[in-house]
Amino acid sequence: MSIMRIGRVELRVMDLEKSVDYYTNIIGLEETGREGDRVYLKAWDEYDHHSVILQKADRPGMDHFAFKVRHVDDLAQYEKKIEEFGLTLKRVTDGSRLKEGEAIRFELPTGHFVELYADIERVGTATGTLNPHPWPLNAKGIAPHHLDHVLLTGDDLSNVTRFFMEVLGFGQSERIMTVDGQEMVGSFLFTTNKAHDVAFVKGPDAKLHHAAFHVDNFYDVLKAADILTMKDVQIEVTPTRHGITRGQTIYFFDPSGNRNEAFCSGYYTYQDFPTITWTEDKIGQGIFYHRRALIESFMSALT
Amino acid sequence: MSIMRIGRVELRVMDLEKSVDYYTNIIGLEETGREGDRVYLKAWDEYDHHSVILQKADRPGMDHFAFKVRHVDDLAQYEKKIEEFGLTLKRVTDGSRLKEGEAIRFELPTGHFVELYADIERVGTATGTLNPHPWPLNAKGIAPHHLDHVLLTGDDLSNVTRFFMEVLGFGQSERIMTVDGQEMVGSFLFTTNKAHDVAFVKGPDAKLHHAAFHVDNFYDVLKAADILTMKDVQIEVTPTRHGITRGQTIYFFDPSGNRNEAFCSGYYTYQDFPTITWTEDKIGQGIFYHRRALIESFMSALT
Amino acid sequence: MSIMRIGRVELRVMDLEKSVDYYTNIIGLEETGREGDRVYLKAWDEYDHHSVILQKADRPGMDHFAFKVRHVDDLAQYEKKIEEFGLTLKRVTDGSRLKEGEAIRFELPTGHFVELYADIERVGTATGTLNPHPWPLNAKGIAPHHLDHVLLTGDDLSNVTRFFMEVLGFGQSERIMTVDGQEMVGSFLFTTNKAHDVAFVKGPDAKLHHAAFHVDNFYDVLKAADILTMKDVQIEVTPTRHGITRGQTIYFFDPSGNRNEAFCSGYYTYQDFPTITWTEDKIGQGIFYHRRALIESFMSALT
Amino acid sequence: MSIMRIGRVELRVMDLEKSVDYYTNIIGLEETGREGDRVYLKAWDEYDHHSVILQKADRPGMDHFAFKVRHVDDLAQYEKKIEEFGLTLKRVTDGSRLKEGEAIRFELPTGHFVELYADIERVGTATGTLNPHPWPLNAKGIAPHHLDHVLLTGDDLSNVTRFFMEVLGFGQSERIMTVDGQEMVGSFLFTTNKAHDVAFVKGPDAKLHHAAFHVDNFYDVLKAADILTMKDVQIEVTPTRHGITRGQTIYFFDPSGNRNEAFCSGYYTYQDFPTITWTEDKIGQGIFYHRRALIESFMSALT
Repeated sequence: MSIMRIGRVELRVMDLEKSVDYYTNIIGLEETGREGDRVYLKAWDEYDHHSVILQKADRPGMDHFAFKVRHVDDLAQYEKKIEEFGLTLKRVTDGSRLKEGEAIRFELPTGHFVELYADIERVGTATGTLNPHPWPLNAKGIAPHHLDHVLLTGDDLSNVTRFFMEVLGFGQSERIMTVDGQEMVGSFLFTTNKAHDVAFVKGPDAKLHHAAFHVDNFYDVLKAADILTMKDVQIEVTPTRHGITRGQTIYFFDPSGNRNEAFCSGYYTYQDFPTITWTEDKIGQGIFYHRRALIESFMSALT
Repeated sequence: MSIMRIGRVELRVMDLEKSVDYYTNIIGLEETGREGDRVYLKAWDEYDHHSVILQKADRPGMDHFAFKVRHVDDLAQYEKKIEEFGLTLKRVTDGSRLKEGEAIRFELPTGHFVELYADIERVGTATGTLNPHPWPLNAKGIAPHHLDHVLLTGDDLSNVTRFFMEVLGFGQSERIMTVDGQEMVGSFLFTTNKAHDVAFVKGPDAKLHHAAFHVDNFYDVLKAADILTMKDVQIEVTPTRHGITRGQTIYFFDPSGNRNEAFCSGYYTYQDFPTITWTEDKIGQGIFYHRRALIESFMSALT
Repeated sequence: MSIMRIGRVELRVMDLEKSVDYYTNIIGLEETGREGDRVYLKAWDEYDHHSVILQKADRPGMDHFAFKVRHVDDLAQYEKKIEEFGLTLKRVTDGSRLKEGEAIRFELPTGHFVELYADIERVGTATGTLNPHPWPLNAKGIAPHHLDHVLLTGDDLSNVTRFFMEVLGFGQSERIMTVDGQEMVGSFLFTTNKAHDVAFVKGPDAKLHHAAFHVDNFYDVLKAADILTMKDVQIEVTPTRHGITRGQTIYFFDPSGNRNEAFCSGYYTYQDFPTITWTEDKIGQGIFYHRRALIESFMSALT
Repeated sequence: MSIMRIGRVELRVMDLEKSVDYYTNIIGLEETGREGDRVYLKAWDEYDHHSVILQKADRPGMDHFAFKVRHVDDLAQYEKKIEEFGLTLKRVTDGSRLKEGEAIRFELPTGHFVELYADIERVGTATGTLNPHPWPLNAKGIAPHHLDHVLLTGDDLSNVTRFFMEVLGFGQSERIMTVDGQEMVGSFLFTTNKAHDVAFVKGPDAKLHHAAFHVDNFYDVLKAADILTMKDVQIEVTPTRHGITRGQTIYFFDPSGNRNEAFCSGYYTYQDFPTITWTEDKIGQGIFYHRRALIESFMSALT
């Protein structure tokens, strides 16, 4: 019984067509389906039917994000553990989402909705499974490999961390502590061997800080930043390295104001990974390793 | 119960001091201990006491490689399953290796020895766990992040693949099949989210093809190749990309003739990863994506 | 009075349409004109009308290469100096080539034909001269910035070197000498601040070894190699570094067997650059820094 | 008669030892000599005795910068042309600077002092001229290849541009014009094939904006930024691309507040390069291609 990966994020967008244009032509995802007010998208290196769902709404933000588990039978066990932890949970019936089976949906202590699911149609990567080339010649835009992680804000980071570690079996790669060591104000959690699959920073409940896409290397981060400038998309944070996770990054905004990240590198984690601690006085360096100071919008622009 | 990672490889070397010089000054590992005819080494980004053991011997090769499991209690369960599969197994007593607890050791259908262990002293990475910098300024040589995988040769790849998948819970990322589809002649297996943790190609039993170290990006592969030339170490395969795993790579030899690899990039895998198949007529492109042909030494130089 | 740069190379190709397809879709040049059996092409970052001319012929090779000088009036002075040196020279009349003015054409001591010209229509780069973006989104294939240099073979390297240095004002960045120091078997010459604009290695007269295109960095060399594999174009030398010039490189062949190179990096030269000497026993390392040995085809495949 | 390159810059620093420590251990230059209140330094890839002179002073800034010409006899001709242009000029006698011959020194219309010189002791690069390796294993810090350019501020950019082009034979690669096209507020000038050797932006006369060092690629820019953070040196502009010159860059400050840049890439220029024009409304994108806005300190921090 194990959670494999962050499988999808459903984002609220205000102008659906403009958003589809952005996520397909600038980010470079592929549209794989539509149903009502929802458009389904995947990155070229993903084999499941979708990893991003755009939902037409009157405000930006994240409807939910979801982890894929190995077997549909695992859902019942998670259901039990999650309810024991005290979270509100419901079943999402088969077919509620295009090309998906049933799921369970619950609300985190931070007010975010998470789903677990196992069944989703497999459409394959753009390069296939028979003598594949390493990348598709017709990739567009930033052309990330896959959805990488989400970063969320919330109030009770200790509790949400405890939930992910004790109930969902995540590890904690890094945490930010107040200088007196009394409060956790940042928590980076992994279920894969990546530096993080979901992370939380202290802030208002139920808000999205950003959804991140994985690119291969720092030259691809540069290419992403170049494309965003050519396409007149606002870049909030130009190419730099994170202290936390060690990854290289840029941040920018989708047409509805949802923050995106193009992220590469970062270390490998395992269940025995010794959690790294950042003290809050070093948080600037932890987040923007070269600037060594936060920027106002990065803390305030949430959706 | 799960296998976390390839934790170590024990290599036979013929001139211990010359080998230590190579693995510390050229590869850039740190010597962490000595005991009798064995020298223990780790990469700067590893937190366990060692990942490479050099054993003075009269011929090169691999004594064994080992996976780290989460809990020492897991060993008994693995012991049972491995014996049920029919492999010969023995307990390695606590302290048989420097700074390690007990282990189980068994022989694969391909004649290689594998160990599972959980207890090893934690010495920490070179960058630490408090407000760490991304890399250590005093790193030497190629300075890989960690031991990445081993590739071995053997006869019965179907059986050894079945063992890893059914008994140890590994996934198979890629396989090479004869053109008639009747025989598996290459098998790439993962327990982490990496493209492979251990792999097998058709060949004589009990032989090592190479032990690989992870570097961050293709410029680090170039730097590695430059350093090897400066240090007059033979490079067998100059910088290129693999078709299989998509990673970037160089191959070279330690002073005893054991092949090493510096490897970066490659995709992410999960338990539901759709296995990629290479047909043997494309094996050249699968292994050396740009050359599209094997080289003789790559198939014959085994230790 | 000065020679600015290598401005063009005219290559003989046997199947014109197949060659145009290769140079436009795989190399990624733009076709800018046709006239009779000649097709004119330029790279996206070049502002003159063409840098490559493909001439339909019954054998591969180089018709000539040409340097652009600053002023058309300079031609007369060069004419005088070249004839004084003893080379056979003729005027090429205005309009002999599409969008070009008159030129002078002469034969090197190595049997190659060189032209000097000043007048050529300016069509501009793909990014323009008003608030330009750094690169064009619609670039295809390898998308080099510009023609970089040619490497030729010939017998009397001392004499051709003397011609370039004394008559055309070139500097010599590197030379390969026999171990006894008696004969020059390689000569690398520059008129710009690049590591070389034209080079010669000992071999049959009047032959082309390769024409090279400039790419920005080693990841672009990797991309070039990937594209060539995807397009099934033979790569002779996979990504590596040269000892000579320090640049990073791949070699491959056009459909007629003319060798091409994608080249990046390399040092800056000036008129006072201290010439680097390679001794012939180190020529392997000088040419292929990582392999440290020549390969047979590299010496024998000439057009 | 031609100017080869920017050969040196003499910077005023307030704490000489602290500055030497910075320029040797963090930038990674080599100290090649001392005399009185001056310390002489060179980059590993430069062959002349020095390219940076640190002069102990009570305020930061640039004493002068200098171009190396080919022959000492050229100085008299430049002297004549410079005086004809109307600039104040004097001879600097042989030996006024360590290991140098005589020079001419004159004041630009912008109040900066420039020297021309030809004679300087040649000490060679760190890699030598016989079968050299591409880079020295013992390089320290950022380890740039060479001094690249200086950017200065001044009032009359038209006049200083005219001086460089008409008297010194420079070309202009880029210029920034007010939106009405009436005034030049930025001017980028080259004598080599680089994108710039000296540049001016509108501002107070006689001030230094920055002195730039050349690194090979964007990963070296990242490494430079990492080292600066490790060494606690303030980074003003984190890794990004310039619109102007297309180069990749970071800006930071020496201990006296003189701004430094680590710069790579950028296009090639020639005497016929079509000058690129930026309109002042796009100056943000021209200078910081990804941020698309100036930052206050970048315009105000001058020395």
